[in-house]
Amino acid sequence: MDVYGTRIDRLRKELEGRGADAALLTSPLSVAYLTGFVCDPHERFMALLLQEDKAVLFVPLLELEKAENALSATGAIEGEIIGVRDTDEPFALVKQNMKGAVRRMAVEKKYMRLSQAERLMAVSPGLQMLDAGHIIAKMRNKKTQEEVERIRAAVQLVEDVLAEGLTRVKAGITELELVAELEYIMKQKGADAPAFDTMVLAGANSALPHGVPGKTIVQEGGFLLFDLGVLKDGYCSDITRTFVIGEPSAEMEKIYDTVLRAEEAALRAVRVGRPLAEVDKAARNIINAAGYGPYFTHRVGHGLGMEVHEYPSVHGTNEELIEQGMVFTIEPGIYVPGVGGVRIEDDVYVAADGAQTLTAFPKALTKLEI
Amino acid sequence: MDVYGTRIDRLRKELEGRGADAALLTSPLSVAYLTGFVCDPHERFMALLLQEDKAVLFVPLLELEKAENALSATGAIEGEIIGVRDTDEPFALVKQNMKGAVRRMAVEKKYMRLSQAERLMAVSPGLQMLDAGHIIAKMRNKKTQEEVERIRAAVQLVEDVLAEGLTRVKAGITELELVAELEYIMKQKGADAPAFDTMVLAGANSALPHGVPGKTIVQEGGFLLFDLGVLKDGYCSDITRTFVIGEPSAEMEKIYDTVLRAEEAALRAVRVGRPLAEVDKAARNIINAAGYGPYFTHRVGHGLGMEVHEYPSVHGTNEELIEQGMVFTIEPGIYVPGVGGVRIEDDVYVAADGAQTLTAFPKALTKLEI
Repeated sequence: MDVYGTRIDRLRKELEGRGADAALLTSPLSVAYLTGFVCDPHERFMALLLQEDKAVLFVPLLELEKAENALSATGAIEGEIIGVRDTDEPFALVKQNMKGAVRRMAVEKKYMRLSQAERLMAVSPGLQMLDAGHIIAKMRNKKTQEEVERIRAAVQLVEDVLAEGLTRVKAGITELELVAELEYIMKQKGADAPAFDTMVLAGANSALPHGVPGKTIVQEGGFLLFDLGVLKDGYCSDITRTFVIGEPSAEMEKIYDTVLRAEEAALRAVRVGRPLAEVDKAARNIINAAGYGPYFTHRVGHGLGMEVHEYPSVHGTNEELIEQGMVFTIEPGIYVPGVGGVRIEDDVYVAADGAQTLTAFPKALTKLEI
Repeated sequence: MDVYGTRIDRLRKELEGRGADAALLTSPLSVAYLTGFVCDPHERFMALLLQEDKAVLFVPLLELEKAENALSATGAIEGEIIGVRDTDEPFALVKQNMKGAVRRMAVEKKYMRLSQAERLMAVSPGLQMLDAGHIIAKMRNKKTQEEVERIRAAVQLVEDVLAEGLTRVKAGITELELVAELEYIMKQKGADAPAFDTMVLAGANSALPHGVPGKTIVQEGGFLLFDLGVLKDGYCSDITRTFVIGEPSAEMEKIYDTVLRAEEAALRAVRVGRPLAEVDKAARNIINAAGYGPYFTHRVGHGLGMEVHEYPSVHGTNEELIEQGMVFTIEPGIYVPGVGGVRIEDDVYVAADGAQTLTAFPKALTKLEI
């Protein structure tokens, strides 16, 4: 059984345990995760109908050939693929393809639209719906070796992008111009897309954790913060590095040093079986001790994979345990208004024998000359 | 009353006519359209609650200050703005802020998630929900002069991008490299983002109306098709031009000439009070007469505004009438497998006295030298 078969098998067991007769999964990421067929159907209907001994993939008619090719390559589902015409009523097709009486159906409640749920109820009066979203999030949480390799490739790609982007930093260049350079380099190096809006913040702007790159020019004696990632072959990277232009002040050096020690302490706190909260606390303790506690205003990290933010959340009250196979970011920061902000972010894979940092970009304070 | 007050007033009348006591609008575009507050809340809750004599805007707490500034600038709503904490239950807040007993509430059923609808029902048992999506789509359909000027600015910007992009066409360059160049130029010229995935298709690939740019190199004697647009100040442009590298064959010239005549005929068919279908038919008749009917495989156009695809759809069976204030694309194409494809796309505004083409980029067959 290949990876997709294994996943579908696991999902079927989870569904059975919850008394569900069927699942109808409408998020393109779930379809990709469970079948290997990667497709953005835009406003058109796409769904995987899964029952105990039946699987049907509904795709827009114009994607039918691609879907057939993808699924014959993966051998993912033993089932049928149905091309849906724009003039079809997709939920009537779903109903026709359900085997037996379905009373409890798992759907992704955070993804399914109310209009879709109403049409599903209209063809299956009395249907109970339960949430499949949590089940799949928990499954995706545990990465296979192949998934980790794809994330690693996305990390290596974005590290190359950052290295080349640094050569474009020069007197007079703005944050937005650096964003344009970085995203151009991403495409040149073969990224499928930026994983999120690339962030470059210069000087005092770096103190805004939700800042937006603008026309601010890089400035002597200021921080320059880069937060960027790429999507490559279905998986994301997400890294942050902060530099200083010219000579830092003593306070800037202290801030940087504190963040770096906090980040390294959080990395060391990653151990299978410990609560996720401890990772956050490890970083926060160091930042608190240095007197910057009030300036570390966000959680220490988040899950990373097919989405740039996914389950689990690495924050100070998350008592869920760290599991082998998780991939998440570690990204403490200190943002002092009027002085500037520093964030250092690595991507971490939890192996059976401990944490592996997927990121290799140097972290020692680096001065850029302009 | 400013533009936002006018829109809210109109929406209230439409709601009253449908017997709705309230509307809860959760799509960021509707919030922007009705209040002037432009915000992507990502996974956080944002909504506009509208009743006969009450308006409340819910925004993520970290966006509160921006929302207050935006709304005091527009004077859009007389109501309150509430910052929602991550730990709040947003639908309990909505319930607390409803005035009187709400029995029928308009929501955007194609936008609202099932999980949200269930939480809304949980705090308001017995609530009936009707769809606000169609009402707002129809309102957005009729553009104000200011909106048309924003679309025009987005069109002019993307035309500048295309003009500069053409200077980068050279021997050995791939489709993907040209996409990277174009998107880089977009950012340099001040676009907020591409309006959609920029498409560059070379040679036989141009015959794939849903083609994806890849590593194909521009080639002597082939078509080179560009479909691109930008988002600028909340509005989109969307244009297509097709060029030929070097000398076209006689058949390529015939295809191009047919598409150009079809596009011009469709432009002439745009008249207030006529069915939208006639615009599609005007183009299709010419393509059919030239014997290429089977190769014109899509509708002739779509509405354009805050979204790159919006209401109305310009297709051969849409008998809705053309109204003053509509903006839509006209984009016939012919795609002959093995030979290549041509599409020519303009953006059109329907003024009281006839259609105005917002696009000015030349349409005569242009040969590029590499």
